[in-house]
Amino acid sequence: MIESTLFSGVLPPVLTPFDADLAPDAARFVGHCRWLLEQGATGLAPFGTTGEGNSLSVDERLRLLEAAVSGGIDAALMIPGTGCTALSDSVRLTRGAVETGCGGVLMLPPFYYKGVSDDALFRSFAEVIEQIGDARLKIYLYHIPPQAQIGFSLALIERLLKAYPDTVVGLKDSSGDWSNTKAIIDAFPGFATFSGSEIFLLDNLRSGGVGCITASGNVNVAAIRALCEHWQDDSADERQASITKTREAIQAYPMIPALKTIISKHREDAAWTRTRPPLLDLPEETAQALLADLRSQNFAIAG
Amino acid sequence: MIESTLFSGVLPPVLTPFDADLAPDAARFVGHCRWLLEQGATGLAPFGTTGEGNSLSVDERLRLLEAAVSGGIDAALMIPGTGCTALSDSVRLTRGAVETGCGGVLMLPPFYYKGVSDDALFRSFAEVIEQIGDARLKIYLYHIPPQAQIGFSLALIERLLKAYPDTVVGLKDSSGDWSNTKAIIDAFPGFATFSGSEIFLLDNLRSGGVGCITASGNVNVAAIRALCEHWQDDSADERQASITKTREAIQAYPMIPALKTIISKHREDAAWTRTRPPLLDLPEETAQALLADLRSQNFAIAG
Repeated sequence: MIESTLFSGVLPPVLTPFDADLAPDAARFVGHCRWLLEQGATGLAPFGTTGEGNSLSVDERLRLLEAAVSGGIDAALMIPGTGCTALSDSVRLTRGAVETGCGGVLMLPPFYYKGVSDDALFRSFAEVIEQIGDARLKIYLYHIPPQAQIGFSLALIERLLKAYPDTVVGLKDSSGDWSNTKAIIDAFPGFATFSGSEIFLLDNLRSGGVGCITASGNVNVAAIRALCEHWQDDSADERQASITKTREAIQAYPMIPALKTIISKHREDAAWTRTRPPLLDLPEETAQALLADLRSQNFAIAG
Repeated sequence: MIESTLFSGVLPPVLTPFDADLAPDAARFVGHCRWLLEQGATGLAPFGTTGEGNSLSVDERLRLLEAAVSGGIDAALMIPGTGCTALSDSVRLTRGAVETGCGGVLMLPPFYYKGVSDDALFRSFAEVIEQIGDARLKIYLYHIPPQAQIGFSLALIERLLKAYPDTVVGLKDSSGDWSNTKAIIDAFPGFATFSGSEIFLLDNLRSGGVGCITASGNVNVAAIRALCEHWQDDSADERQASITKTREAIQAYPMIPALKTIISKHREDAAWTRTRPPLLDLPEETAQALLADLRSQNFAIAG
């Protein structure tokens, strides 16, 4: 059905650092992108849920993409989040990503209205694809019902693949429901299906999926990449158990501020802890508890 | 607690017409604003849920506001929707509305993340208010859990009122739960509490609320306004029964395309039926059924 898979492996949804005025901090952002690639990320997924993408304007996202490219990041390795509630925003941001040379986009459905039918979501994606009208556009559907509340049924994926086989090329499943990911992998051979957490990585790869786009990839990408490389080895289950343990330790806390706290500690850089509302920075006591939990399992960021 | 209420009565959340390219149609928008005021609207609430506000970019909303003012609409009568998921968008749009002279803004909470705490929502509103730093800013909180999923608890309203008594002046309750509206009215005397549907209008006014901001105000504003004027008369219950009946006939259909269909029919203007994705235009057969339902109850748009 689809000839090539552009992305596979582990793509961290890059955290977005903010300055003291809560404006995006391009220098720290680019530095983090570079470090993630050095640590083994096979690609980067900025402006996802973890990257506080929907807390950034279209212009802020485009400026960060430009800064990354100016800073030496290969645009082809990036799959930015570009699905907004406003059709016009989704079109402008997606077009900007394509023109920047991004290897793909990770697209949320327009998530304001609830109870939206497959027909309506099909219309939304068709309109974006046709307004852009660019063969370079490669869309990965972003299925995350816990936040978006609406998402992609098997019937809708099938319809999009039939209508736009060269454009709709993959999906990130952040439903947290492995049976849903498995059903997508089984139904659409060749479609690039990512798990939304490394907890499902070995299952994903063994079933024919292509990897994971995972929040905790921001702090543990080397070990997750190692499993991507060694999933057929005897060591695979042990590697999976180890990265699962780390993930579970982190996700016991509010995920995004927890990840920023870990990076802040690792870099000895207090600025990294800042989040934009409606998130809240981790209180100091909670931050210390998180770091103690990670020390107790001998977790240490490489590099 | 609050000295003056800026808005009261019936404010239609103005429908947004689109041209053949699905771009906002400023001329038809301004014409509709003018007609609603002629028909008795006490103010206008563009870019709400009904106005497909979240399907419009910040720039599109600012351009429509400018067009309205250029077209002779008094900015002081407008309370546009300005709450976006991105802090920077909410600040820019709200500041634009204040600088245009709008009498207030109707502000959604940042609605992407779910399970957001009162602390986090307080931080969101505080950040917008303080970044704007303009005494002219008057915020009406937009409580609509069916779409936003997150909303305003009594404790959060109390905290916002305490911190920003001259800025946070009212609320629209689109929960559909009259007991919630009643609790807000009872808890905060002087706070301008609107119902999100005219079905609750008489209850709202009798309890000390100030009116309704209601989708069907786009097509039935004269009769709703008449109840606002005559709610203490003997005719009040009969008037309520009549507008309730009309509302129920319309809301049996998908509300936004149904309202556009009614306006399209009234103006003999096919262009009015267009919606932006993720909405779907009403199929012709459904449109005919809706119009037949309204004829059967002798409903006719005045003017």
